[in-house]
Amino acid sequence: MATAKAWVLKKHFEGFPKISDFDLKKIELPKLKEGELLLESVFLSVDPYMRLCSQMDMKEGDIMIGTQVARIVESKNPAFTVGTFVVTNSGWRTHFISDGKDLQLLPPAWPESLPKSLALGTVGMPGLTAYFGLLEVCKMKPGEIVLVNAAAGAVGSVVGQLAKIAGCKVVGCAGSDPKVAYLKKLGFDEAFNYKTVTSLDEALRKASPDGYDCFFDNVGGEFSSTAVNHMKKYGRIAVCGAISQYNDSVPQKGPYIQIPMIFKELHMEGFIVNRWSNRREEGLKALMKWVIEGKLKYHEQVTEGFENMPAAFIGMLKGENLGKAVVKV
Amino acid sequence: MATAKAWVLKKHFEGFPKISDFDLKKIELPKLKEGELLLESVFLSVDPYMRLCSQMDMKEGDIMIGTQVARIVESKNPAFTVGTFVVTNSGWRTHFISDGKDLQLLPPAWPESLPKSLALGTVGMPGLTAYFGLLEVCKMKPGEIVLVNAAAGAVGSVVGQLAKIAGCKVVGCAGSDPKVAYLKKLGFDEAFNYKTVTSLDEALRKASPDGYDCFFDNVGGEFSSTAVNHMKKYGRIAVCGAISQYNDSVPQKGPYIQIPMIFKELHMEGFIVNRWSNRREEGLKALMKWVIEGKLKYHEQVTEGFENMPAAFIGMLKGENLGKAVVKV
Repeated sequence: MATAKAWVLKKHFEGFPKISDFDLKKIELPKLKEGELLLESVFLSVDPYMRLCSQMDMKEGDIMIGTQVARIVESKNPAFTVGTFVVTNSGWRTHFISDGKDLQLLPPAWPESLPKSLALGTVGMPGLTAYFGLLEVCKMKPGEIVLVNAAAGAVGSVVGQLAKIAGCKVVGCAGSDPKVAYLKKLGFDEAFNYKTVTSLDEALRKASPDGYDCFFDNVGGEFSSTAVNHMKKYGRIAVCGAISQYNDSVPQKGPYIQIPMIFKELHMEGFIVNRWSNRREEGLKALMKWVIEGKLKYHEQVTEGFENMPAAFIGMLKGENLGKAVVKV
Repeated sequence: MATAKAWVLKKHFEGFPKISDFDLKKIELPKLKEGELLLESVFLSVDPYMRLCSQMDMKEGDIMIGTQVARIVESKNPAFTVGTFVVTNSGWRTHFISDGKDLQLLPPAWPESLPKSLALGTVGMPGLTAYFGLLEVCKMKPGEIVLVNAAAGAVGSVVGQLAKIAGCKVVGCAGSDPKVAYLKKLGFDEAFNYKTVTSLDEALRKASPDGYDCFFDNVGGEFSSTAVNHMKKYGRIAVCGAISQYNDSVPQKGPYIQIPMIFKELHMEGFIVNRWSNRREEGLKALMKWVIEGKLKYHEQVTEGFENMPAAFIGMLKGENLGKAVVKV
């Protein structure tokens, strides 16, 4: 019998989440039945979507939703060997029981040199989000100009690099000078700190006087309303996230965008990466190849200790992370 | 030598256009040179886009932009015979000279029973807008649910009927009870007066509790922001017009739409019908066929007299027209 620790949503977030909105619980797990496995979380992910989904899909008392890299520590299922690492969507827990159906093996031939936490980031959901968003929503073509915001984050940093690999010019925006320096290091053509520019409008014009063919939007709100006016004719906007909106108690308002949408015949599309779950292997294979070749760099913000998950989550929502925020149990 | 009358933009519109913003001028036309034609406008179109373009593309003193059905009254071009009717984009003028390059013949075999003004409406630009917006932007499929606003207008009334022909369920909104009665007569499944419902949100839910696959948006603003929340997963929004916004001196604001765009993975696309100018014949042929078969009905709001063009234009912007607003010279 194992004891799991789990983080529970004690109280629905009002505005920005607070540490006191979470509760750490202990759960005694039963003995394994035939066909079952006991797993131990090794790395847990904290992602912006959790803030949004907490409001939509969770009730108070539920265990926080989320994905982890876990190791099989006991197996009564002949299909799974103890010691195997998997990716699964079992929420904020240290240990849990599975029948194996919801487990995804790490991509085959995972190099020893790569941290397994990458399966939660660049070679995982955020990497796939960048990959399919650029290919299938933005439909980027070589030579085009791509704009991405929250560009130093888990998704944005992959977006910019994949666009460079595809032969695009890339403009990235982030919220601190060290992040902007990081973007330059990653090979972004232009990068600026949207918090310190005197005018976002001017900064976007200066970074690409000809405008943008593709806009990969992780932020929403005022940034998006401004960026719409800088799109080129037939530009494509991939609406991936709206982190500027997730912590609002009262929905914010901005100028209606229909008139520029019409004049420039813009295409704007919201998406969730699961739409391409049947092409997951293709995406992971491509991402892994570029990582191994050194064309796709990554940075992880690793918080140590399961007890620090709420702090890591809140820090990520505040933009304190560079690259992917993960928690090491 | 002929004398043309022409309506000039005397003063850029501030808010709603006023009669005093226009000036009627007389222009002496020179004698025709070889290759030239003299044309006389028979029907002139007034359309919402003119309000928008006046702000963007015109300066004070310019002749108002617009399309007409015109008749050739003198020809020094062997390719054109006197008496031929054409559609052309020569602005608000009674007479004008052309070298023939910018003239489009009426679709061949135009039935005597059909008014030629239809080439400015159901079998013209507004009809094509409905046709390509539904087929290429909404990508409507049989059995889907289609929402259209300004549904009793030149474009909206065609949208609803084409969607019915394609086997969709159609919900239409308009701004008066006679318009709503007209929509029912046209075969719309549901229709309501958005000005008198207590809640647009409730009215949209009641008209289609399952939501909408396609939304053909002619209005923008608050209507659009509300409708976005009623779209089904993977819904498509064709942004054709934003008439609620054209007369604002200060841009209006509304709730940001990124969050519903993401959750429902919506596709929203602005468009201008000229994108499909290479398929103009296909579209006109289809529209004409449905009109002749009686499947596509039309209503025209005909204002008599060239001197009444500004009044017809202002009336159309106020929604006083049922169907297509045209001016008979």
